[in-house]
Amino acid sequence: MPKIISGTEISKVMREEIVSRVSELSRKGITPGLGVILAGDNPASHIYVRMKEKACEAVGIYTAIQRFSADVSQKTVVDLVNKYNNDEKIHGILIQHPLPDGIDESYVFGQVDPVKDVDGFHPVNEGKLLIGEEGFVSCTPLGILEMLHRSGYSPEGKHVVIVGRSTIVGKPLAALLMQKNKRANATVTVCHSRTADLRAITRTADILVAAIGVPEFITADMVKAGVVVIDVGTNRVEDSTTEKGYRLVGDVKFDEVKEIAEAISPVPGGVGPMTITMLLHNTTLSAEKTAEKLQN
Amino acid sequence: MPKIISGTEISKVMREEIVSRVSELSRKGITPGLGVILAGDNPASHIYVRMKEKACEAVGIYTAIQRFSADVSQKTVVDLVNKYNNDEKIHGILIQHPLPDGIDESYVFGQVDPVKDVDGFHPVNEGKLLIGEEGFVSCTPLGILEMLHRSGYSPEGKHVVIVGRSTIVGKPLAALLMQKNKRANATVTVCHSRTADLRAITRTADILVAAIGVPEFITADMVKAGVVVIDVGTNRVEDSTTEKGYRLVGDVKFDEVKEIAEAISPVPGGVGPMTITMLLHNTTLSAEKTAEKLQN
Repeated sequence: MPKIISGTEISKVMREEIVSRVSELSRKGITPGLGVILAGDNPASHIYVRMKEKACEAVGIYTAIQRFSADVSQKTVVDLVNKYNNDEKIHGILIQHPLPDGIDESYVFGQVDPVKDVDGFHPVNEGKLLIGEEGFVSCTPLGILEMLHRSGYSPEGKHVVIVGRSTIVGKPLAALLMQKNKRANATVTVCHSRTADLRAITRTADILVAAIGVPEFITADMVKAGVVVIDVGTNRVEDSTTEKGYRLVGDVKFDEVKEIAEAISPVPGGVGPMTITMLLHNTTLSAEKTAEKLQN
Repeated sequence: MPKIISGTEISKVMREEIVSRVSELSRKGITPGLGVILAGDNPASHIYVRMKEKACEAVGIYTAIQRFSADVSQKTVVDLVNKYNNDEKIHGILIQHPLPDGIDESYVFGQVDPVKDVDGFHPVNEGKLLIGEEGFVSCTPLGILEMLHRSGYSPEGKHVVIVGRSTIVGKPLAALLMQKNKRANATVTVCHSRTADLRAITRTADILVAAIGVPEFITADMVKAGVVVIDVGTNRVEDSTTEKGYRLVGDVKFDEVKEIAEAISPVPGGVGPMTITMLLHNTTLSAEKTAEKLQN
């Protein structure tokens, strides 16, 4: 049986560490604060924001949450971003994606002060990530890196194949893993829908990251024996035997791939909980940087 | 014999196109302008700046060139950057790397207005490149893309292996080629000094880009038959049979690799001239964007 890379368990450990970091900050008179903007009535967005709110509360991070209706103006949203930018109680700003139609999301995200951009979506932070300078790294790629390190699978010198080139996972993860530093140093390949012979490439992976959003797309014949698999997918598939009528599966055919993998992350309980944990981490980090500046 | 991908010839064609674009702009009363900052007495930097100056002149781009001694203060340099930022005759700003010791280069580059950052080194432009938004792309990666397209070797669907992960070539080129658009859409692998079995990976490349800075590093046994090779290296090796006592070679063992490649770029006469051509292109593009804004 393979090692199960449990995002739930790694998150538990990391959240305990964050609790300690928050109390260390509180001794310096600082409470990390997260300012959240949610607009519209997307049910998933409301659930995510509630999950993030609870997770913050549990580790002692203060939250300011503003919920707008779908007809909010772009100006109102930007004004609030600027208020958070200038509010010293707020160390991190989270704008829940997607914003309603008619709002230029890329413009609004660009208004967040990069030093409070705990989601790592500001072009300045994406650029620093690519160049290899210090900045906020977006939560899912950073969470994947933590999962690998904390399970004893350093990507250094390994061939990491990432399937999927989304803006929030594939591309920033590739940039993160190819950097010249001890935590990265991987040989990185990014595959996607236009890749000619996908199977030939995925079979060369020492570490495979599946982030395509297609249920159980990666099958056993696509990986080599001993691969380490991180499954980023969270897909609902119909299942009349469950109470809800559906179940969650990843982008990897878990039951099949687990037979030959050295290690594999499950869905649910894999990357999902790590993403929220890294938001807590980044917000705490931002507060720690503030504390450092105040001391100097 | 392979097809020779001549940067010299492609540059010639592109520079003629740029001449037409510049006269089109002149009909609208606009002359593209490049503001250059050179500090210190690095002989290579002085040669590069002179080459860029001449190339601008030849296509009708106006240049303002400020040469500082090595003891110039950071403030003086930043003040000039701001002057160029606000000068409507200047559409592009070029700060010749490296700046003298004691100047925080990353800070100074960050002061360039991203809309005049024709070198594409500002974190905002690097971030847009990674995300896939419109912005200035740095000249060497962009030149490599032009070389491929204008020689009939679209990277779409191909496996591009980049050897080298520098900030000015490997990393931005990887970001450029993995984007979801007709000019890119490649499966991209980035290899480097920490790659475990380099030869196994380079042999899978449909297109191989060598950007490691090691003379004649890529040998025939490292590529597959029919590969398309772009050689970014420019290395001096001693050669007592030449007048100067040295000759220029690339990162690829040209005589050996050309026997099995479908196409290959030479050194000199390959990527080198393209880099300057793309600076002319980006500066003209910036002026064209200004013209568009003025019309609206």
